[in-house]
Amino acid sequence: MISDFGLADSYVAEMKAAVLNNCLDAEIIDVTHLVPRHDVLFGSIMIERAISAFGEGTVHLAVVDPGVGTERRLIIAKVAKQWIVCPDNGLITWAWRMQGEGEISEITWRPKRFSSTFHGRDIFAPVAARLAATNSLRGLAIRARDPVLLEVSTAPENAKRGRIIHIDSFGNCMTNLRTAELQAAVMVKGVRVRVVQTYADVAVGNLIALMGSAGLLEIAVREGSAQQKLKLEIGDEVVLK
Amino acid sequence: MISDFGLADSYVAEMKAAVLNNCLDAEIIDVTHLVPRHDVLFGSIMIERAISAFGEGTVHLAVVDPGVGTERRLIIAKVAKQWIVCPDNGLITWAWRMQGEGEISEITWRPKRFSSTFHGRDIFAPVAARLAATNSLRGLAIRARDPVLLEVSTAPENAKRGRIIHIDSFGNCMTNLRTAELQAAVMVKGVRVRVVQTYADVAVGNLIALMGSAGLLEIAVREGSAQQKLKLEIGDEVVLK
Amino acid sequence: MISDFGLADSYVAEMKAAVLNNCLDAEIIDVTHLVPRHDVLFGSIMIERAISAFGEGTVHLAVVDPGVGTERRLIIAKVAKQWIVCPDNGLITWAWRMQGEGEISEITWRPKRFSSTFHGRDIFAPVAARLAATNSLRGLAIRARDPVLLEVSTAPENAKRGRIIHIDSFGNCMTNLRTAELQAAVMVKGVRVRVVQTYADVAVGNLIALMGSAGLLEIAVREGSAQQKLKLEIGDEVVLK
Repeated sequence: MISDFGLADSYVAEMKAAVLNNCLDAEIIDVTHLVPRHDVLFGSIMIERAISAFGEGTVHLAVVDPGVGTERRLIIAKVAKQWIVCPDNGLITWAWRMQGEGEISEITWRPKRFSSTFHGRDIFAPVAARLAATNSLRGLAIRARDPVLLEVSTAPENAKRGRIIHIDSFGNCMTNLRTAELQAAVMVKGVRVRVVQTYADVAVGNLIALMGSAGLLEIAVREGSAQQKLKLEIGDEVVLK
Repeated sequence: MISDFGLADSYVAEMKAAVLNNCLDAEIIDVTHLVPRHDVLFGSIMIERAISAFGEGTVHLAVVDPGVGTERRLIIAKVAKQWIVCPDNGLITWAWRMQGEGEISEITWRPKRFSSTFHGRDIFAPVAARLAATNSLRGLAIRARDPVLLEVSTAPENAKRGRIIHIDSFGNCMTNLRTAELQAAVMVKGVRVRVVQTYADVAVGNLIALMGSAGLLEIAVREGSAQQKLKLEIGDEVVLK
Repeated sequence: MISDFGLADSYVAEMKAAVLNNCLDAEIIDVTHLVPRHDVLFGSIMIERAISAFGEGTVHLAVVDPGVGTERRLIIAKVAKQWIVCPDNGLITWAWRMQGEGEISEITWRPKRFSSTFHGRDIFAPVAARLAATNSLRGLAIRARDPVLLEVSTAPENAKRGRIIHIDSFGNCMTNLRTAELQAAVMVKGVRVRVVQTYADVAVGNLIALMGSAGLLEIAVREGSAQQKLKLEIGDEVVLK
């Protein structure tokens, strides 16, 4: 379960109740509910991380939905033999890029009554639960195409330039570079940053670039924040040297 | 499980251990542990939301307990065929108002030894677990009456005035108005706010009033915070026009 | 599960997936993931609290690991018939002091491939899951000795002086004093603080010392923060009067 609902309100629990009411033996794992509000790119990366971690048949319920109540589609995507139930607003982008394109279906199921403001509880959660219970789209969704995708993508193989696409809560800055042959250094914001194997290769407080746990090049500071040290932002360019 | 214990300490886990030690197959769902410290009204609304979401026989363990160690009663309430285990300090108020009055029992069970500062772990959690395991008050509590209730209540049918009773972490302001026939607009803090069906009826940043997912009129801003925009507070009056 | 990973990223869920992939019916309880980053003492106290709350055979997975990627050992400790899987950086200290010394084994198991930055997911979680599944160290770890221990310890019996060793998120300040015969007052930061049985013994806002729910003397303020009131810090001395 992934959302931008935060942890202070009852919204996440209301979604969980809607899941359990439709699939009593569902096992629910929170990925995060602290996606920055309406940040579809951040949510998209969380979905990809969850797909990478969990196994075949997992149902991911992802609700970052600034368009709730508008005409956006509600979809079920199948990527890497796992399901993602979410609004069609780009949330599936990063899974699509990293895990390979999959299949899209549009959710046609609706409950008899539902609120106009909380489709996570009223539509997405019951659909995810039924999908988990049956492993089938029957009665839930029909095949569709052309999902909304954000412009972000992985850098081409042998690319010498990439961009920062995600910053975690420690200030580690993830790029879209997954090159296997890393150079000795990268340039970011005019600063030359040494590429290392592990944090232990440098002293505390030093800037480094290394292959992160997501399989992408990250800019980091040992026991510190690369974001703060270099004032990095999403979209900043990273050049291999 | 609902509390104001926060997520940084071990207190929530200590309560969960006490539940599982008394009911090994309990399924525990966190509603929220970020109730503002000692805010009984906020906790009360979280309980009502949880009752609305979950089904018959659910046991709600709610600990917002500024009076721990004083003479306040410990109670089990039965509302809408669900149980609430909590201190008798007004926490059941909103469930009582929205879901209909229920039955009250006073918890008489005590462990051989218990701390003077953490009844959530030492009394409430074991009681909730035993109740979940047996669905019976036997040996736990005896019938009682006159629970402590906060002054807040739902506005009468056809009322033209209500009040803000809850503000969520997005700044959506929930009122005590559940009128079915809404007017074209409401007045709040001297501002006329249009009543709409859904966020999509207005542009991003606009103030609106709409029926929220809790079945109550809410003041909201599309993709923004009504609380911040109008400096709204608990108790502010809302007038139907 | 205890960590300093925070709740905003996918890291905790990635660890949980690694647990479930190795022990499908594991029941995972979060103690806290909001240990201040790299604060081994804080994590150590959370582990002791978890051991105190849970029962025989529980596996505690604790990752506060500033040295990830360095040569520090990975260990499994057995204390009070429970297991702790963690880096050998002092995390087991408080359990060792409070629950009695136990046995240490060094984790020898490694997956075929693992990241250099996220041993929590790649090594600790699978080891904890296998330990939970088999209740045996076979193939996972070999007996070792001399765990790293922090200098903090419980005050000797009849000690008249102790120190603040932990401050919770409410500002309650836990000391290392577990004396049964408490005096009438304690001195801390030059202030005389009355020792009471329970919060109800004083008015709201008053400073008190009392036996906390962890079995240790705590400095507290009724419905307030002792930390803020006296500007208390870890290490401050507390003298029994």
